[in-house]
Amino acid sequence: MAKQKKQPRPKAETPKGFRDYFGADVEERRQMLDAIAGVYHRYGFDALESSGVETVEALGKFLPDVDRPNEGVFAWQDEDETWMALRYDLTAPLARVYAQHRNDLPTPYRRYAMGPVWRNEKPGPGRYRQFYQCDADTVGTASMAADAEICAMLSDALEEVGIPRGDYVVRINNRKVLNGVLTSVTSGAERNDIAGMSPSELREYRDFEMQGLQNDPALDAIMRTLDKFDKVGVEGVRNLLTHGRKDQSGAFIEGVGLSNSMAEGFVAFLTARGSTNEATLARLREVLSFSAIGLEGVNELEEIIALLKAQGYGPDRIVIDPSVVRGLGYYTGPVFEAELTFEILDDKGRPRQFGSVAGGGRYDDLVARFTGQTVPAVGVSIGVDRLLAALREKGRVGGTAQGPVVVTVMDRDRMADYQTMVADLRNAGIRAEVYLGNPKNFGNQMKYADKRNSPIAIIEGGDEKERGVVQLKDLILGAKIAENATLEEWKERPSQIEVSRADLVAEVRKMLDSQNA
Amino acid sequence: MAKQKKQPRPKAETPKGFRDYFGADVEERRQMLDAIAGVYHRYGFDALESSGVETVEALGKFLPDVDRPNEGVFAWQDEDETWMALRYDLTAPLARVYAQHRNDLPTPYRRYAMGPVWRNEKPGPGRYRQFYQCDADTVGTASMAADAEICAMLSDALEEVGIPRGDYVVRINNRKVLNGVLTSVTSGAERNDIAGMSPSELREYRDFEMQGLQNDPALDAIMRTLDKFDKVGVEGVRNLLTHGRKDQSGAFIEGVGLSNSMAEGFVAFLTARGSTNEATLARLREVLSFSAIGLEGVNELEEIIALLKAQGYGPDRIVIDPSVVRGLGYYTGPVFEAELTFEILDDKGRPRQFGSVAGGGRYDDLVARFTGQTVPAVGVSIGVDRLLAALREKGRVGGTAQGPVVVTVMDRDRMADYQTMVADLRNAGIRAEVYLGNPKNFGNQMKYADKRNSPIAIIEGGDEKERGVVQLKDLILGAKIAENATLEEWKERPSQIEVSRADLVAEVRKMLDSQNA
Repeated sequence: MAKQKKQPRPKAETPKGFRDYFGADVEERRQMLDAIAGVYHRYGFDALESSGVETVEALGKFLPDVDRPNEGVFAWQDEDETWMALRYDLTAPLARVYAQHRNDLPTPYRRYAMGPVWRNEKPGPGRYRQFYQCDADTVGTASMAADAEICAMLSDALEEVGIPRGDYVVRINNRKVLNGVLTSVTSGAERNDIAGMSPSELREYRDFEMQGLQNDPALDAIMRTLDKFDKVGVEGVRNLLTHGRKDQSGAFIEGVGLSNSMAEGFVAFLTARGSTNEATLARLREVLSFSAIGLEGVNELEEIIALLKAQGYGPDRIVIDPSVVRGLGYYTGPVFEAELTFEILDDKGRPRQFGSVAGGGRYDDLVARFTGQTVPAVGVSIGVDRLLAALREKGRVGGTAQGPVVVTVMDRDRMADYQTMVADLRNAGIRAEVYLGNPKNFGNQMKYADKRNSPIAIIEGGDEKERGVVQLKDLILGAKIAENATLEEWKERPSQIEVSRADLVAEVRKMLDSQNA
Repeated sequence: MAKQKKQPRPKAETPKGFRDYFGADVEERRQMLDAIAGVYHRYGFDALESSGVETVEALGKFLPDVDRPNEGVFAWQDEDETWMALRYDLTAPLARVYAQHRNDLPTPYRRYAMGPVWRNEKPGPGRYRQFYQCDADTVGTASMAADAEICAMLSDALEEVGIPRGDYVVRINNRKVLNGVLTSVTSGAERNDIAGMSPSELREYRDFEMQGLQNDPALDAIMRTLDKFDKVGVEGVRNLLTHGRKDQSGAFIEGVGLSNSMAEGFVAFLTARGSTNEATLARLREVLSFSAIGLEGVNELEEIIALLKAQGYGPDRIVIDPSVVRGLGYYTGPVFEAELTFEILDDKGRPRQFGSVAGGGRYDDLVARFTGQTVPAVGVSIGVDRLLAALREKGRVGGTAQGPVVVTVMDRDRMADYQTMVADLRNAGIRAEVYLGNPKNFGNQMKYADKRNSPIAIIEGGDEKERGVVQLKDLILGAKIAENATLEEWKERPSQIEVSRADLVAEVRKMLDSQNA
């Protein structure tokens, strides 16, 4: 006999930044995604599942999220030397799929996709290197009806999974409006080169100037600062746009270095939200009277609002909010964000709004990378983990995570009897299992049932078998009695009853119903 | 304005060996997996979702499938130099998870898992480098009740997704039986060193000898040959065990080199299946009278069959079949395979049985890699793509892949009207969408509806709007009429009707019902 070499044992550990999901966590996510998929399907969106692996070439080397410049992808070289990588989102693969299959796909192409994506970034608390995304996009139309449709669908999806109307709002802005403001503010009336221009000349000149500014890092910095409005408020943005500010930890965050008057221009824009959508539109028109692009953006917003209103999506659900910026650099038109407005308690016990769970917008350049042709597109991405956390806060999931009924084993030789019991229960749709560990110690069987969150344990010893009965132990009631041992009324309620074997299914169902009542 | 550098356009291609799944393909798979998950859940199995990425150390360097020695994994080095890889199956991660969390998990631990796995192997027709697996395993019990339970659950899962009873059979064998046969055959009575031993001495000696043979490459070759019985038949196995044979393409496949009498021993075993499970067990007992391990295996099979019979899983569903080998080297006890018995036509139009869609067995050494302690386990893996293909053959899926009702756009300015129509339809649960492409050319809208497999197109021009009516175009009937243009009776049935706008939802439903009737 050849002796096997002893090797050191491998460590049983998830790789750094990855995690395992157990039981209810998995099932609740699946149910939520199924419900969302149902809504997307009803809207005529088709499922698409691309593989987790793409060529690095198709993916593009850089992640779109300008907030996290250190992010990367997990990549390796194939045997033929092609570089391959795990997808970092579902939009880059969509662009590749659309470019590859565009002759076979309908135009416009509505698709939804759900699945894991991977980011090669530094893991942190609650920040994992694999997580779910859930996207819907319409590719191939510039019509604002597509943007409106996505906002309506997002509302429907939130309600379908259990966020009641009134507890969420879809906030809409337009990147064109933002660009218009950037031009208006950064090329102010104090400049001489534009003095004497007619309003239409001025508009053209500014929009021309804007195109040159698109890739300006200073603009990036301004946009990222505006995006922090929700977190740091008016005063915080004012400081960050100018000389900087101290954050909560006391660290000094450098400012963008704008003049006070320029910063005021941005603050006026961020706070332009009026008491009605119409009031907001009117204010924006005023602020943007010098920018053709800005006014185009306002018109688009007006069109979206009108389309949604006609379908019954009024200001209780859809709100124009100029403070919505969205980090992604690739947005070119309307941007939107679904915000949950109910309050939760933060780490320090202070109430705050739950906040954003989904966002998206219009982007026109992703497919052009492959084909050279600009293809207009608009999409939304739901933050799967955020939305699940919100549903848990609202008690919409997590309440029903109940273990199986456990049939204990009193007599190892009568395993067939016990298996027949669980088969009877399952055939009636009741989750049930027989104890499969070493049955010698009954206490261990009870400990197992406890670990399984089992609602009921079933016991059939030799004596019961002879008399044609079984014992039903109500473990939920038993736990309550144990907790409230001082309350006499609990003690009088029996947590264990004897029933006829023939009535097993009916009696178990009765007990389950009483537990859930 | 900074000019952007021109870069060559990336190719829009899936990486080699990967593919995209569209629409119904995705949704049918999800529905099938949801149905299976429902069965697993009812049996008390808990969901587990580990990440797609594991450390190479935890995965182990070698794939378990001895049939494909060239298989590898996709691996790369993390920033801290740890080697990471995509999981190649769901069993290796289970072993890691169980070892890592064993103090928090119930014992036994029943879990199911579904998701993609990746193999770095040469792609071929129908052979992809990413595919789905769907597993259920019970870890931590040596009880044959666990094996019986998995076989019952597998039967239930097949019926739940739409394979009727009678169209499948779960075939069971035992690796111990096979090992017993290997000992009996390879250390035959012609050998002198065992002459004069008592039956019990002989049994012990042979089982001792067997342990030494476990890692013998010759044994691997024999096992792999026996596993081909389904494909090549008795004569094929006989040749492959001895001097080799020519395959269908005319290429010569080398034999294992056994003597004819040894080969006969194996053939007798492979064909030991009797007309009843009891007859098979009796024959095996006879063949294996010299091997303690073999007899232990027979006893285990008997126990499983008895447990299943008591729950109503009789020989119409569960059959002992000594020809079930299962390639995986790590099985140590019962092995099983679900076979679909209905006939399909092969590439050349000849009828053949659909074949295997799931398999599994008992394995005891996977967790020991991490902990040093042997943990008994048993599991099953359903071949997701194979089972989906079977359901398509049976017409269980694929029939209902219907596109959305398409509302056409006759008047671009009345988009809100059209959106309201689709909203009405959706609120009634009918899949519907408005055409979002350029509406100028009505023919394009009809072509789009065709590409979407749309059952109905809705038309509301200015005239209809004024009269409060809409046109419903029955596209299914229209297609039939186009196909059967010579049939007069088709022509008389109108494929387009005018209905009141107020009755839109009811009339669309009526038309859909008539199409599905």
